[in-house]
Formats: sequence, C-alpha cells, structure tokens
Amino acid sequence: MMITSAANPSIRQIRVLRQRKERERSGHFFVEGVRLVGEAVALGMVETLVVAPELLTSPFGQDLVAQQAGHTRMIEVSAEVFASISQKEGPQGLAAVARQRWVNLADVRLTNAPGWVALLEPADPGNLGTILRTADAVGASGVMLLDHATDPYDPAALRASMGAIFALQVVRATFAEFAAWKRAQGIFLVGAADKAPTHYQDLVYPQPLVLLMGSERQGLSPDQQALCDQMVHLPMCGRSDSLNLAVATGVLLYELLSQSRRAVLHA
Amino acid sequence: MMITSAANPSIRQIRVLRQRKERERSGHFFVEGVRLVGEAVALGMVETLVVAPELLTSPFGQDLVAQQAGHTRMIEVSAEVFASISQKEGPQGLAAVARQRWVNLADVRLTNAPGWVALLEPADPGNLGTILRTADAVGASGVMLLDHATDPYDPAALRASMGAIFALQVVRATFAEFAAWKRAQGIFLVGAADKAPTHYQDLVYPQPLVLLMGSERQGLSPDQQALCDQMVHLPMCGRSDSLNLAVATGVLLYELLSQSRRAVLHA
Repeated sequence: MMITSAANPSIRQIRVLRQRKERERSGHFFVEGVRLVGEAVALGMVETLVVAPELLTSPFGQDLVAQQAGHTRMIEVSAEVFASISQKEGPQGLAAVARQRWVNLADVRLTNAPGWVALLEPADPGNLGTILRTADAVGASGVMLLDHATDPYDPAALRASMGAIFALQVVRATFAEFAAWKRAQGIFLVGAADKAPTHYQDLVYPQPLVLLMGSERQGLSPDQQALCDQMVHLPMCGRSDSLNLAVATGVLLYELLSQSRRAVLHA
Repeated sequence: MMITSAANPSIRQIRVLRQRKERERSGHFFVEGVRLVGEAVALGMVETLVVAPELLTSPFGQDLVAQQAGHTRMIEVSAEVFASISQKEGPQGLAAVARQRWVNLADVRLTNAPGWVALLEPADPGNLGTILRTADAVGASGVMLLDHATDPYDPAALRASMGAIFALQVVRATFAEFAAWKRAQGIFLVGAADKAPTHYQDLVYPQPLVLLMGSERQGLSPDQQALCDQMVHLPMCGRSDSLNLAVATGVLLYELLSQSRRAVLHA
C-alpha cells in the first residue's frame, strides 16, 4: 500500500534521521539517489528501500527495485511524501534507510600508500565528506575519526563524499585510544601543522603510515604533535596563513600517492 | 542615533544583499567580523560601517571604529538588529557594506607561478571561496570567473574564502572573451580533465600560465579543451572517478608552486 501522508509514522522515522542523535540511537542513516542506493544494496547495508514509483524513471533504479522485491523491506510512497524526506533537487524516487558500518581500531590492518587518514575533531560535515571522497580517489584504505568528530553519515557529509563512505573503512576512536594503538603497533605517524619545520615534499614518507590532520579551528595541539614521528607543513606565500582542511588533506594525500608512483617508476 | 528596529529601511537594504541580484544591482556586498572589515577598510572598499557597541568587545575593532569616525559613514545598531543581519554564530558587532571590486580582463598582467586560475562556471559558492583561499595561500595573482559562475561575494563564498577575495584580483568574462584574450596574448593555458593523457606531474609547467578548471558537473567541453595548450589529469585509483573541484584545483596549484620551488632550489 502506498504511503501518501508525510505524517505517516514510518516517514517521520526516516525524517528524524536528519538529526545526529537519531542516527546514533538507531545506527541507521538515510541515503538517496539510484547510484548510492545501489551501492548500499550491493554492500548489504540496506534496511528498507523507499520507492516513489511516479518519480523512479531510471531503468537501473527500476531493475534494482525489481531484484530486491521479496529480499529487502520496501515501502512505496507518493511523489509528495518522497519530496518530504528528500534533500535533493529533482529527487529520483529511490532512497534507503541503511545501517551504519564502523570498523574497530583493533581490526585495522595497515596497508601501503596512501594508507589511512586520521582526523582530529573535524567539525564541518562538508569537509569530512570531501576528505572521504579524496581518500577514496587516491586509493586510501580508510579514515579514522578521533574524539568529537562530525558524523560521516550526516546528509551534508554523504553528499560531499559522493558515496566514498561505501568504499572506505571508517573508524571512530578517542585520541587516547588512537595514541595507545599507534604506540602498540609501532605505526609511523605524520602530522601537519603550519609551523612544522619540514616542507611536505622534503619527507620520504615510509610505508605504511597514518596521516594525522588537526581540526579546522585548532589544528594539532603540542601533545598531539608530540605523538607524531614527523611533522610537515604546506608552504603558504599569500596573505592567508591557513588552508581549508579538505584541500590541505588532498594536497598531502596526492603527495603520498605521487611518492609511491615515483617509487614504482624508479624500481 | 542607534537603530533598534530590524525593519529600519537601512537595515532592510543590508539584509537584501544576501540576494545576488541585489548585490549585482548595487555593486555592494556585506562583510562581517573585525578582521575582514579591517581589511576592507584598509583597501578603501567600505561604504558604511555597521557597529553594535554592545557586542563590539574586540580592542582592534573598537580602535578601527574610533579611527574611522568622521571618515566613513557609520550606523549604530542594537545587538538584536545586528543579529538580524549577521550570519555568524557569536557575532562580533562589526560589519560593513562594501563595494565589490572587479578587474577587467584587458588589465590582467600575467606574472610567474602560480599565476592565475580560470574557473568555468563554478556553481558552488563554498567551492569558489575555498579556491580563492587556496589561490591566495599559494601566492596566485587572481581568479577568472568565466560564463555563469557563482558569486564570489555570496556570503558562503566570502566565509569559505576567509577574506582571500581582498588579496586577489578577480575577473569576470565570458569564455569567448577569455579565448580571444588568450589567443591575442599568446598565453599558455593548462586545462584539467580526468581523461587527459598527461599525468599532472609529468608536465613541466611553463611560466607564465593560466590554469583552466571546468565546472563541478560538466568539467571542460571538447571545445574548451581544444583551447588549452596542454591537458593534464589527476590520477584516481579508488571507486571514485572525480574529485571535489576545490581539492583538484588545490592539488594542481600546489604542483605549480612546487615546480617553481624546485626551479629555484636547482638554479
């Protein structure tokens, strides 16, 4: 039976997933668009598919719904109801409630470049999503969110990540847990700070490593820098004394990727 | 006399500057925060200072107001009225209406690396602001906005730019005007596209040059690519086949900066 009221309890339950506390409580998140929903289905993360037949014109989306019939819980909604839960212009008529997926720090296996990025209290979901997108593009294994980080399942983070969250392992831990893990595993940690003496291209990055980035406002504290085996800086020669966090992380990840490429070329 | 009503015509006139068409019509924009207002004052761009004495606790801001008394038009407002025009959490009690500043393409003088960035129809003001911030950080001269670009004086762009707009020259032109200028001046143009055969680090970037970036959605069309003397790509090895525009531009600008640094080191 098609749901035609935006006040329907199932629809309300989806709408509250815009709030972080409801996402935390349920362990769920809301995702929309045929491509992203398709990826969530392929990963076995989908709890409920939400379909608005009037809006779903994509053949890929229609096939997906047909394949999942009988396998995945599905609710049909009117175009108006879909619009009430969608945060997109031009909604595609396919969305899902999916289960969040987190990796435990203890289960992390370090791989070679570009490895892992650890973010200390990133505050802006758009930045976090953009970093996930870049980490995916360079072939990183995952992202660690330390202390009070913004939520990668926030709609703005999901949007900016372009679905990279489905390709990456994401870890949540306190900085203390991270520090204990780093020491126990003997992991090489590189941090970034604008006052660090070493130019980011003057370091030969050992493998495997973890790249540690501070928050947008605070950067890394002296204690956090002390945990790093090496600190690097990005040069700045204008009026500005800082970069956007996602841009700084992107430049460093591309340097890691470039160095591993040169190592292969010269091998 | 202090303005205590948010409905006051002067206050309304400021509030409408949130709309692009009102910014275009007036040639003005709204800027807040003691640091940014201070920069706008120093550049002679301020039309009217807006001061909320109850909120203005910064000694720098208080000095600025005292210095400008009698030189710059000033309106005093209550904390409530200030909050009605502010888009910041924790407003600082100092804002300004300032005049936009644009440079004509004909007046552009090319300088050495990292030179200029030309953006074709960037759509997201946050991306544009972030690119301005990065361009400033690497010491670029300016940014050219081609065809239907988002507004660098949009509040979201100003916020993301962290005031870089005050340090950079910004040009508006059509792609046709830009193409004619490039041909007439014999400027070396490097474009970015994910299918370009050349790895972005395999090109020795000649100086001076202009870096051309396509829009978030479309990238560069074949015609636009044909105008470029060289096309480069950023490698991607994950699930994702694209990068955030501001990240891609940042990685390329840092490559330009790095190459000019290596040229100096090896000179």
